[in-house]
Amino acid sequence: MSGPAGATPHASSRAAILDVIRAAGTISRVGLVHATGFTGATISTVVRRLIDDGLVLETGRAESTGGKRRVLLQLNQSSRFAVGVHLDHAGITYVLTNLGGSVVARMSRAGVGTDDPPVIVARMATEVDALIDGAGVDRSRILGLGLVAPGPMDQTSSMRLVPPAMRHWEDFPLERELLAATHLPVVLDNDATAAALGEHWSGDVGGASTFAAVYMGTGIGAGLMVNGITYRGASGNAGEIGHICLDIEGPECWCGARGCTEALAGPAAVVAAARADSALARAAGLTRGPAQTPRRLADFAAVTRAALRGEAAARALLERSARHLAVAARTLANVMDLDHLVLTGPSLAIAGSIYLPVVQEELDRAFFSRNTHSVSVRLSRSASTAPAIGAAALVLQSELVPLREGLRLPDNLADAEPSGPPVVRQAY
Amino acid sequence: MSGPAGATPHASSRAAILDVIRAAGTISRVGLVHATGFTGATISTVVRRLIDDGLVLETGRAESTGGKRRVLLQLNQSSRFAVGVHLDHAGITYVLTNLGGSVVARMSRAGVGTDDPPVIVARMATEVDALIDGAGVDRSRILGLGLVAPGPMDQTSSMRLVPPAMRHWEDFPLERELLAATHLPVVLDNDATAAALGEHWSGDVGGASTFAAVYMGTGIGAGLMVNGITYRGASGNAGEIGHICLDIEGPECWCGARGCTEALAGPAAVVAAARADSALARAAGLTRGPAQTPRRLADFAAVTRAALRGEAAARALLERSARHLAVAARTLANVMDLDHLVLTGPSLAIAGSIYLPVVQEELDRAFFSRNTHSVSVRLSRSASTAPAIGAAALVLQSELVPLREGLRLPDNLADAEPSGPPVVRQAY
Repeated sequence: MSGPAGATPHASSRAAILDVIRAAGTISRVGLVHATGFTGATISTVVRRLIDDGLVLETGRAESTGGKRRVLLQLNQSSRFAVGVHLDHAGITYVLTNLGGSVVARMSRAGVGTDDPPVIVARMATEVDALIDGAGVDRSRILGLGLVAPGPMDQTSSMRLVPPAMRHWEDFPLERELLAATHLPVVLDNDATAAALGEHWSGDVGGASTFAAVYMGTGIGAGLMVNGITYRGASGNAGEIGHICLDIEGPECWCGARGCTEALAGPAAVVAAARADSALARAAGLTRGPAQTPRRLADFAAVTRAALRGEAAARALLERSARHLAVAARTLANVMDLDHLVLTGPSLAIAGSIYLPVVQEELDRAFFSRNTHSVSVRLSRSASTAPAIGAAALVLQSELVPLREGLRLPDNLADAEPSGPPVVRQAY
Repeated sequence: MSGPAGATPHASSRAAILDVIRAAGTISRVGLVHATGFTGATISTVVRRLIDDGLVLETGRAESTGGKRRVLLQLNQSSRFAVGVHLDHAGITYVLTNLGGSVVARMSRAGVGTDDPPVIVARMATEVDALIDGAGVDRSRILGLGLVAPGPMDQTSSMRLVPPAMRHWEDFPLERELLAATHLPVVLDNDATAAALGEHWSGDVGGASTFAAVYMGTGIGAGLMVNGITYRGASGNAGEIGHICLDIEGPECWCGARGCTEALAGPAAVVAAARADSALARAAGLTRGPAQTPRRLADFAAVTRAALRGEAAARALLERSARHLAVAARTLANVMDLDHLVLTGPSLAIAGSIYLPVVQEELDRAFFSRNTHSVSVRLSRSASTAPAIGAAALVLQSELVPLREGLRLPDNLADAEPSGPPVVRQAY
């Protein structure tokens, strides 16, 4: 028995079974017994309720293996939806996904800029309404809204450690205000971690369950996935490769350290160097004067277009940036001993074709354990939307695997039900 | 029930229960039910066998909480022992530990030097005999021998990725030869990972179950512990902070990359710089001519003694090395979002008092998430023996938690018994 005889199955049994069905695509009740360790009686009871709630469908029978042909179960993909929002100074990206994490609607709007947080929150509420209405989805089927932004969100739901351009967001009670404006439950997280989750749910990493998403938006970061669970570290800040030191005497970074990868190689550094070269600035069509933050991604795109049409100076700048990012990616791969990296984020959606070969070459040539195994580097097919997809997945996970301790996944679901059955997924 | 009614409990139930008793110190059968999720019947059966085998003792009763006073169980510490060997060019360290991981005997002997592997294996067998005989422990109670060395051991039991001075050990069938010479089961691992395990078993990290052991022996590395389990990565190479790039145009490292922490800051770099300064070399009493590898640790100790008695040039060299190590430690803390580091390994046993304040200052000043939490840095009290203690702990773990897939801990013990109960520890 999975608990005292006749006891009602725990809520987390439901969550664990739902997640196994999602990951499997289709699976029989007997398959669920094997995958979860729950008894047949528990599986029967929970699956019946999931079907009654419309979350799971029976979908034909498996090939016979001698005995009775088994009924297959799958998620009812269109029974529930989630909104994912990626908030950045340069742009706000929205996606609406179904219960399986597939994108059913997406849109991009102007970024945060220097507007006050209440103005942006009001605008986001309108834009979320437009997203949902445009997709024709009944609002009662939306589980909630995941919002991700640069830097981690702290336990009290305000932003911490944000880059200078977003300082006015510190201490703003984002979760509360967004809930009030949208009437949707809100989950917050940092964009690089969400990008890793988005890549995992999109299946863009070839089925690898342990990998890093090397992220370049307006800043540089990484999200880490270990055995299918995001690795977050002590305070949700794991993966800060933008602040790997590449030059101990290098230029000062906004974080207070010197020679950080982001200061040397981030889009802002590339755009600043392009502006400093007046011939290049003219060739790339950069606007005059110092770049406003919301312009930076557009300017970075302009430099990239110049490089792709053969401007040698633009190409040299981007390859220099790529070499720095490649060394940071190698450090990450060395420290975690990874064999899969995926390049993602809005800036790599633009310039990934220039960065990919440089990062792969660096890992082939100098990854410490290259005699033991190679590191495969891919460019995400959803680089510009991965953080928003991950934001929606956070909401879906909170239905599939109830969240505990704020944003952190449970350390071990077995802890929550000491006499219960084993849980198939590991968490950090 | 933990399996089909009346079935014999699995071997891994035994291992899991034994490990919970070890970690708890003392615990009742009811406590084991709560901690492991096994039924009372399973706990009764397994505990009876552990007592019959002499591994566990009943040791008085807990204070009454109203009902019957509960019998407490604890490991029979002196029922089994393990040998731990840390093999390095500069020295070989041996420990004999009891079942709880406490050191009952230790000794240090000359390092590997340029001797051929068969010569060293024969010597190790003699030295292991002396260790066991000197402690007066019956050989039948020795569970096995753990051997750790620089660089990971691959699945076929030979060394890979070793530094140049140990190249002649590549492809030598160490496990097989050591088994033949000592008649003890052999477990192999890399020394930095073993150091983290040794720190964990020694309790030197103040009970933290997630931390990094920053290791400096003849080389630089780190062992990573996440939720009480060593994090190994794809090939057992996680934690290679000696090959974090600190200067993209820096000197070439033996690993093939440039500007590695080890090349800039390792003991060999410190000794080479001290030799290049003839006044300092004389003041520190360094031998003339290029340092032989086995001399390097002695020379590093000589430079450290000079610094500690006030030689400014020696102090400056070590502080420069410490600043580089500190930046690598900060990168590790940033990437993994750690809040505990312990400095360990033979070189930090010697010079830790100089390195500790520099590393702590770097993390206080520039750790990316310092506004969210601080990073506590400690100097290990067993810095010179931690790898050997960890080597013995590997053997004890293989009794406590059966090894699967060579040296890797099981991903999830629940996988091995799909209908069984949950297991309290997570593995990677």
